[in-house]
Amino acid sequence: MSSSLGTRLSPPPGAGWFAHRPVAGLAADLRAGRLTPRDLVETALAELARWEPVINAFVTVDEAGARAAADQAGRELAAGVDRGPLHGVPVAVKDVIDVRGLPTTAGSRQFAGHVAAADADCVRRLRTAGAIVLGKTATHEIAFGPTGDRAANGPARNPYDPDRMTGGSSSGSAAAVAAGVVPLALGTDTGGSVRIPAACCGIVGLKPTHGALSTHGVLPLAPSLDTVGPLARTAADARLLWTIMSGTEHRGTTPRAAWLPPDTIHPTAPDVTATVREHLRGLDEVVVPQAEALRTAYVAIQGSEAYAVHAERLTDRPDRFGDEVRDRLRAGGEVRGWEYVRARELRDRVRGEVLDLLREHGILALPTTPLPAPPIDDRTSDVGDVRAALLSLTSPWSVLGLPALSVPAGLAGELPVGLQLVGPPGSEHDLLTIAEHL
Amino acid sequence: MSSSLGTRLSPPPGAGWFAHRPVAGLAADLRAGRLTPRDLVETALAELARWEPVINAFVTVDEAGARAAADQAGRELAAGVDRGPLHGVPVAVKDVIDVRGLPTTAGSRQFAGHVAAADADCVRRLRTAGAIVLGKTATHEIAFGPTGDRAANGPARNPYDPDRMTGGSSSGSAAAVAAGVVPLALGTDTGGSVRIPAACCGIVGLKPTHGALSTHGVLPLAPSLDTVGPLARTAADARLLWTIMSGTEHRGTTPRAAWLPPDTIHPTAPDVTATVREHLRGLDEVVVPQAEALRTAYVAIQGSEAYAVHAERLTDRPDRFGDEVRDRLRAGGEVRGWEYVRARELRDRVRGEVLDLLREHGILALPTTPLPAPPIDDRTSDVGDVRAALLSLTSPWSVLGLPALSVPAGLAGELPVGLQLVGPPGSEHDLLTIAEHL
Repeated sequence: MSSSLGTRLSPPPGAGWFAHRPVAGLAADLRAGRLTPRDLVETALAELARWEPVINAFVTVDEAGARAAADQAGRELAAGVDRGPLHGVPVAVKDVIDVRGLPTTAGSRQFAGHVAAADADCVRRLRTAGAIVLGKTATHEIAFGPTGDRAANGPARNPYDPDRMTGGSSSGSAAAVAAGVVPLALGTDTGGSVRIPAACCGIVGLKPTHGALSTHGVLPLAPSLDTVGPLARTAADARLLWTIMSGTEHRGTTPRAAWLPPDTIHPTAPDVTATVREHLRGLDEVVVPQAEALRTAYVAIQGSEAYAVHAERLTDRPDRFGDEVRDRLRAGGEVRGWEYVRARELRDRVRGEVLDLLREHGILALPTTPLPAPPIDDRTSDVGDVRAALLSLTSPWSVLGLPALSVPAGLAGELPVGLQLVGPPGSEHDLLTIAEHL
Repeated sequence: MSSSLGTRLSPPPGAGWFAHRPVAGLAADLRAGRLTPRDLVETALAELARWEPVINAFVTVDEAGARAAADQAGRELAAGVDRGPLHGVPVAVKDVIDVRGLPTTAGSRQFAGHVAAADADCVRRLRTAGAIVLGKTATHEIAFGPTGDRAANGPARNPYDPDRMTGGSSSGSAAAVAAGVVPLALGTDTGGSVRIPAACCGIVGLKPTHGALSTHGVLPLAPSLDTVGPLARTAADARLLWTIMSGTEHRGTTPRAAWLPPDTIHPTAPDVTATVREHLRGLDEVVVPQAEALRTAYVAIQGSEAYAVHAERLTDRPDRFGDEVRDRLRAGGEVRGWEYVRARELRDRVRGEVLDLLREHGILALPTTPLPAPPIDDRTSDVGDVRAALLSLTSPWSVLGLPALSVPAGLAGELPVGLQLVGPPGSEHDLLTIAEHL
């Protein structure tokens, strides 16, 4: 293995203050009195004001709430009450996750005017750890889309090139972290919605083991696949957030890894493969022959479950969905019950085989997406249909409920490329460790 | 409670030798040398020859295999090898359950010529306990039907009135036990397929907790609902078979029971309700408001899973299904994935509510079916569509995975009526105890 991934990807030109500071450094500065939580919030608000016209990453900014929480956090720290490494650190929350008193719009006119009565479990946990919610970030409409360019509030834009997609559906969370507006953000990942925008925006995104974190207070998309996951600039920052979200600890092991050639799953741009493979020289190769079938199973499971969530909205107020999401929801509603049953049987059958393979070969490494961020609104590409391509390398692991991490691997042309690491259930810290060692 | 159920229903006129002997008595006679296993097999074969032209209960009779097994069992007993209370006792096995070396036809031309290479797990367990497989009993085609009158080998016929249905799908097992051809039989129950024919033929049938017994070696119909269950003439005989099948023991408790008015679920013939209620005077009444929704969920779950099992047969050789089963399979194939998802969500949600209700009120008691055995081929009745009616009072508990027992409650006109007892997971012995005390 080369160690060039250790040299982090350069932030996008003009990236904000947080793009240059590890969260651990912020924590040290806060405790040394060099900074206050209010300083961090004001900095985040200033960077947001500068970047928001470019990236369209926020749906709601809670200036007053963030300032009040920062002042409270500052008083606690001054009084010697220390809630840990997130105490006083601003975070952004994807707009499908409830934050008490703020709208949850899910990027859709269906939810206009919906104000959350309580914090989602994951938000409550972050607040208990002292984190400060700066606002709600853009999402592909109802979190149903890997491009991030269909939402009631318009497309989110990539900080590396605002004419390009952020990837989705956690579009705003990825863009805001990449642009250095906030150091950390929460997203959700059903088939790749944390990992894809993390890859497209050159940051780190973790999709946890299905069921590892509560999704209470999160708008469901497909409950048997849905997860909540952290987005951060570095693996170290992501571990910090994951440790607090999950209540787990790093055990210090460094597992083996094997290279999964992405073209065995979906045609992949050669410069993407080369950029990722560069970090993984010398690894054994391994193929997951069922990945193609898992992609098909993903479509049946996700489509059926998403329609079950939104059926009444489709019947009662179809006009409140954007055209593309409405059409895709309706297509999901046409999946037959027996196809859903077979998809779940496939999931159960293949899961054991892939767990055997992980035991034998270690963590799987492959690109996160087979192409870098496409231009906004593009739906075809050199590697085929854009939406299918973006999901192709991430959705198989979602079907299996496995944790997967996307970390920046470098640039292809001038656009970030993501390396994806996939492990057995509960291996989140191991994935982060491999990312740190690359 | 009156104790009139203690007086067992009279067997049908001309019922065979086994209709008058408890299995415990056979076991005593075998050990006292008053009978040999070979005597029991010859008696069963003689009764079978007499009754089969009337009831059409068997698809395959293994005369040679049964005689050889009987002789072996006799030698063991003579040598002091005692396998327990089923040692040397003949049993019949529904023809969706594999018995090594015998055809498993499932009552369908789809499976003509299919010979089982191994015993199903439940058969292996009975053989280990010394039971002797006499043959394979008729089933509604692929176990998909509550009437028992659609099968490649023609309709099974009710021993109380051969112009009437046996109920299904375990039609032959129920008819053979009721007619006294065998003392015990195995059936399968997905939505009522053990309980319905038990009720229609005036015997005892137990649908166990879903997952309590292995279904390995059994043709699936709808795996998330399928169970294997015993049919017997009395609760004591059923307990004996259940104890051996499950490896569980009777703990001697006698739980409370409450009356569930069947008309709150489906219109029920007044004489059926009166006949069953007679045994349950003084019980509190309780209503399960979600039972109607569970019936609908049953149709979605069963239809989707059954189509998933048989899709290729429907595509490749649709002509090998009977018209009615083929049409019903195809209807199941039209259920949408999102409807299946919602049915399973309903299952999960209601299950907790019904478990709370069982904790508060005890075992639920209601009729097994809302009408006695209809005439063969009838599809309409005073209480509505015959198939929907027959399944209406049994399928809700299948959706919830709960154990349920049907015991004879008396006659309505000249036809048997069943009382159904429903309990929490693992309460099979409690259900049998209540039945013995009624």
